[in-house]
Amino acid sequence: MNILFVGDIFGSAGRRIVTEHLPHVLETHTVDLLIVNGENAAGGFGITPALAEDIFDMGAHVITTGNHFWDKKEILEYVASVPSYSHDRARRIIRPANFSPATPGFGVYEGTLPDGQTYAVINLQGRVFMQQNDDPFRKADTLLRDIKAKVIFVDFHAEATSEKVAMGWYLDGRVTAILGTHTHIPTADERILPGGTAYQTDVGMSGPYDSVIGVQTELVLNRFLTGAPGKFEAAKGNPKMCATLIRCDGATGRANGIQRIMLGE
Amino acid sequence: MNILFVGDIFGSAGRRIVTEHLPHVLETHTVDLLIVNGENAAGGFGITPALAEDIFDMGAHVITTGNHFWDKKEILEYVASVPSYSHDRARRIIRPANFSPATPGFGVYEGTLPDGQTYAVINLQGRVFMQQNDDPFRKADTLLRDIKAKVIFVDFHAEATSEKVAMGWYLDGRVTAILGTHTHIPTADERILPGGTAYQTDVGMSGPYDSVIGVQTELVLNRFLTGAPGKFEAAKGNPKMCATLIRCDGATGRANGIQRIMLGE
Amino acid sequence: MNILFVGDIFGSAGRRIVTEHLPHVLETHTVDLLIVNGENAAGGFGITPALAEDIFDMGAHVITTGNHFWDKKEILEYVASVPSYSHDRARRIIRPANFSPATPGFGVYEGTLPDGQTYAVINLQGRVFMQQNDDPFRKADTLLRDIKAKVIFVDFHAEATSEKVAMGWYLDGRVTAILGTHTHIPTADERILPGGTAYQTDVGMSGPYDSVIGVQTELVLNRFLTGAPGKFEAAKGNPKMCATLIRCDGATGRANGIQRIMLGE
Amino acid sequence: MNILFVGDIFGSAGRRIVTEHLPHVLETHTVDLLIVNGENAAGGFGITPALAEDIFDMGAHVITTGNHFWDKKEILEYVASVPSYSHDRARRIIRPANFSPATPGFGVYEGTLPDGQTYAVINLQGRVFMQQNDDPFRKADTLLRDIKAKVIFVDFHAEATSEKVAMGWYLDGRVTAILGTHTHIPTADERILPGGTAYQTDVGMSGPYDSVIGVQTELVLNRFLTGAPGKFEAAKGNPKMCATLIRCDGATGRANGIQRIMLGE
Ligand SMILES: [Fe+2]
Ligand SMILES: [Fe+2]
Ligand SMILES: [Fe+2]
Ligand SMILES: [Fe+2]
Ligand SMILES: [Fe+2]
Ligand SMILES: [Fe+2]
Ligand SMILES: [Fe+2]
Ligand SMILES: [Fe+2]
Repeated sequence: MNILFVGDIFGSAGRRIVTEHLPHVLETHTVDLLIVNGENAAGGFGITPALAEDIFDMGAHVITTGNHFWDKKEILEYVASVPSYSHDRARRIIRPANFSPATPGFGVYEGTLPDGQTYAVINLQGRVFMQQNDDPFRKADTLLRDIKAKVIFVDFHAEATSEKVAMGWYLDGRVTAILGTHTHIPTADERILPGGTAYQTDVGMSGPYDSVIGVQTELVLNRFLTGAPGKFEAAKGNPKMCATLIRCDGATGRANGIQRIMLGE
Repeated sequence: MNILFVGDIFGSAGRRIVTEHLPHVLETHTVDLLIVNGENAAGGFGITPALAEDIFDMGAHVITTGNHFWDKKEILEYVASVPSYSHDRARRIIRPANFSPATPGFGVYEGTLPDGQTYAVINLQGRVFMQQNDDPFRKADTLLRDIKAKVIFVDFHAEATSEKVAMGWYLDGRVTAILGTHTHIPTADERILPGGTAYQTDVGMSGPYDSVIGVQTELVLNRFLTGAPGKFEAAKGNPKMCATLIRCDGATGRANGIQRIMLGE
Repeated sequence: MNILFVGDIFGSAGRRIVTEHLPHVLETHTVDLLIVNGENAAGGFGITPALAEDIFDMGAHVITTGNHFWDKKEILEYVASVPSYSHDRARRIIRPANFSPATPGFGVYEGTLPDGQTYAVINLQGRVFMQQNDDPFRKADTLLRDIKAKVIFVDFHAEATSEKVAMGWYLDGRVTAILGTHTHIPTADERILPGGTAYQTDVGMSGPYDSVIGVQTELVLNRFLTGAPGKFEAAKGNPKMCATLIRCDGATGRANGIQRIMLGE
Repeated sequence: MNILFVGDIFGSAGRRIVTEHLPHVLETHTVDLLIVNGENAAGGFGITPALAEDIFDMGAHVITTGNHFWDKKEILEYVASVPSYSHDRARRIIRPANFSPATPGFGVYEGTLPDGQTYAVINLQGRVFMQQNDDPFRKADTLLRDIKAKVIFVDFHAEATSEKVAMGWYLDGRVTAILGTHTHIPTADERILPGGTAYQTDVGMSGPYDSVIGVQTELVLNRFLTGAPGKFEAAKGNPKMCATLIRCDGATGRANGIQRIMLGE
C-alpha cells in the first residue's frame, strides 16, 4: 500500500505546482491514500472551504492543518458543520488533536478506502517554541487507544527538531508513519525506525522557494532588519512540491519504504 | 576550490565517525579548506582544547561553535589566550560574532592557504527561539566591510528556518557560502542562490542518529513526558557524519556547486 | 477567618526574616490558616524535606511550590512517600496541579483546622513564558469539581501578568483567594473581585531585596552583560518578608479583606 | 524638583481618568517635569499624533512608548518628521532607544525646563520574553556617555522582573530614576537605591482595571481557553491612573523620594 503525503501547500504558487505534479505522481507511484497539509493554502494563511474542495478534487482523502488552522473564519464553521461520525469532506479536514477541546473540528479521522483498507490520520502540534496546547505525547497515547485501523499516519506539526525526533521514537512501532510539517524546509533524514515506523523531521512546504519559507523575502528581511511589523504576503517564485511517499503493509501497518519527493517547474 | 564543512560533531560517537570518514572524503573531493563545527564535541556539551587539537590534527583549518561555546570553561581561556592577529590554533576556534563584545574569543577568522588563497570564516548565531544576542544581520554587514578575502564561509548557528533562509538571501552574492547548524538534522534544500552563494538551512550533526538530536532518547522522552529536568547524556547509536561540500571559484568567491554528504557505519 | 500566605521564601536570608516576623504576624492578625510558598527555600533552588519541616514547625499548614519544585531530588521522594489521603507533612507540600500526571506528589490538599473548618489549597502554574504544562484553566475547573471545602486558596505560580489577571477573573466567585507568585516582586493591585475572591498578581518573595529577585546582583548582571552562563547564588542583603493576609467568611468562603504585608529588618 | 511619570495610558478609559486626575496631581505635587507613557493610548494599540497632542496639551514634556510604538502608522511618520535637534512635540515622543537603528524616531530626548533646569528622558525596552532588539544595558552605557543633563529619567519597558531589577542596579547612581512599564500592573517595590536612583519595577497602566491588563476580560479568557486568535478590544471598567512621583535634587540628579500613586473614580 502506498501513502503520499504532501507538505504544507503555500499560496497560489503552491496550489499551482501541486496541481501540476500531483496527477503524474499519484499514477506513477500507484498511490492508495493521499494526505495533504493545507494550512497555508489561502495566500499562506489558513485554508478556505473552497480551497479545501479543490484539494479534495485532486484526490486527497484527508487534509491536515496546524497553527494556521485558525486564520480563515469560514473553515472553523465548515469543520464544525459535521458530526464526529461523518465522512463528508468537512469531516476530513482535521486540525491538531491536542488543541483545546473547545476548538471546532476534530484531530483524527478514520476512513476506509474503496478496497476495504482502513486507515487513520492523526494531526498533532508541538509545543516547543509554539503556542500552548495539550501535551501531544499523552494525546497520542489517548488517540491510539481508540483507533481500530492498522494503517495510521501522523502529521506532527512542530517547530523544534528535538520534539519531532522524540515523537518519532515515541510512536515507533505504534503508527505507520509520522512525518513533520511546519518549518517549510524538507529534511534529509527520512528513514524507517527500528519498530517499523516511517519518519521524517519535516516534509517541507509545497510552495515558492524563492521566499522566506513562503513569504516574500523583502517583507521578512524588513522585519528582521527593522523590527517593524508589516503584512506578510505570499511569494510566487520557484515553486516546488514537497511530498513524501510511504510504502507499507496494509495488514500490519508497518512501513517498509520512505521516499522524499521534491518537484519544481 | 573545494570547501568541506562538517556539521556539529556530537560526543564520542560523532568524533569516531568523523575520524573514520574524513580522510577519504578529504582525498576523494580534493578539499582545500576544511571547516568543522565542534560545539558538541565534548559529550554533546561544548569543546575542550584537547578535543579541538584532535580536530585540527584531522586537518581542520577553522573550528566554529555556537550556543554550546560556553559549556567548557577551559575553551574560554584557550580562545582568550591569543591576540586577534594570531594564526595559532586557539585563534582558529571561533564563536558567534554577534555574542556580546565581552565574550572571550573572536567571531571571524581570516587565513591563507598554502597556495596563497585567502579565505574568511564567520560564525553567527540566530536570535529567534534562542538567547538574546546582537543582531546577526547588522553584524554580518559590519564584518563583511572589513574582510579582504574573496572566499567567505558563514556558519549560521540558528534554530528557526525563517531566520536562516532570510540570512541566506541577505548574504547572497556577498559570501561564498552560508550553511546552517544547530538543529542537528540535515535539510534537503542545498542550492546555489541566484547571486552565487551556496546555501543550506542545516548541515545536520555528525553524531549518533539513534538519539534525540544527539542525546539519549530515553532521557529526552522522560523530560517531554514528565517535565522533570534531568541530566542529558550523549547517545552512541547509529553515528553519521553530516557534511556539505562547496565548490567555488577562489578568484571571485562565487560558489558553483554544493553537495550534501551523509556517511554512516 | 484569617488566612496568611507567605511569598516564595528565598534562601537563608528569606528563612531568617520569616522566622523573625512570622510569630508576631500570626499573633497580631489571629491567623487561622498559614500557607507558605517554599520553592526557593534551599539557597534559592528548591526545598529539602528538612527545610520543609522547619516551615511546618513555624506553623504552616500547607507549603506550595512552583517551577523550582524539581530542584532538590529529596523532595520528590518525600512527597511521593505518602498516599493521596494522607495528612502527613509530606502530603501537605504540594506542587503545581497542572504538571504532568507523571510528576511525584499532588497539586491540591484538603484539610481541616482544629475548629472543624475545612479548607483546600490549590497550586497551579502558568504557561506563558514558562515550561509547557497542562492548561491551568481547565485544570482548575477539574479540581474545583471535586473539592468539598468552601474555603479555597489558590497559589498561581506564573510569569505573565496577563495570565495571572485572567485566572483571577476566571476563578472569581469560585475560590476564596487566588494570589500570584514567581516574579518575586510584590504587586500593588490587591483587591476583592466582584464575585468575592481576593486577588493579587504577585505576593513577592520573602528574601533578600538587595539582589536580582533573590540572586546576587553581580552574577545576574554578568549574565545579562556577557551572555555567559554561570552559577547563580542566593544574595543576603536587605531581607524582607512579603505576605498577604486574607479575611474571609469560613461558611461561604467569600473573602472580605485583603492586605499586603512587607516586613524588613 | 518633582518629576511625575504616568504609566501606560490605555484606551479611552485611560485617557479619561488621566484627564480627570492629572490637573490636581500636577498642582498638589508642584510637578516640574511630566513624562507619560502613551504606547496604548489608541484603543490599547499604539498612539496617534492627535492623541499625542492631547497628552502634550495636558502638560506632558515627553511621551515614551514601547513595543506598541509600531501599531499606528501615522506616528511613525510623525516622529520621523523632525530632526534630532528639534524640540517640537514630534521630537518629544520617543521610542525604545535599543530598537534597530532603522527605526523611525529617537530613543532619548534632552530638554530644558522654563527655569533653565536641563533633563534627559531615555526609553529602553527589555529583551527577556520580548522581541529581539539591541542590548539595553550596553545601549544605556552609550546614551549616558553623551547626555549632558544631570536629571535623567529612564522608562524601561520590559516584561521580566529579573531584567528590570537588574537594570535598576546597573543604572543606580547614574540616573535619577528608572521606572518600569509594560506589565500594566503596579508593583509595590518603589525605593531609592543606595546610589541615589529612584526605582520601581512597574508603574502600572493608567487604564481600565476591570480587564486583563487593559483588554476586555472575555476576549482574553476566550484566547486562554480555546487558543483561538481573536481581536482584542480595550475594556472600560474601573479606570485608574497609575503614576509615580520622584523628588530629586536638580543640581546633582540624585533622587530623594519616590511615591506610588493610584487614583480611580
Ligand atoms: Fe505551514
Ligand atoms: Fe505551521
Ligand atoms: Fe549543535
Ligand atoms: Fe547549538
Ligand atoms: Fe520563586
Ligand atoms: Fe518560580
Ligand atoms: Fe503598555
Ligand atoms: Fe508594552
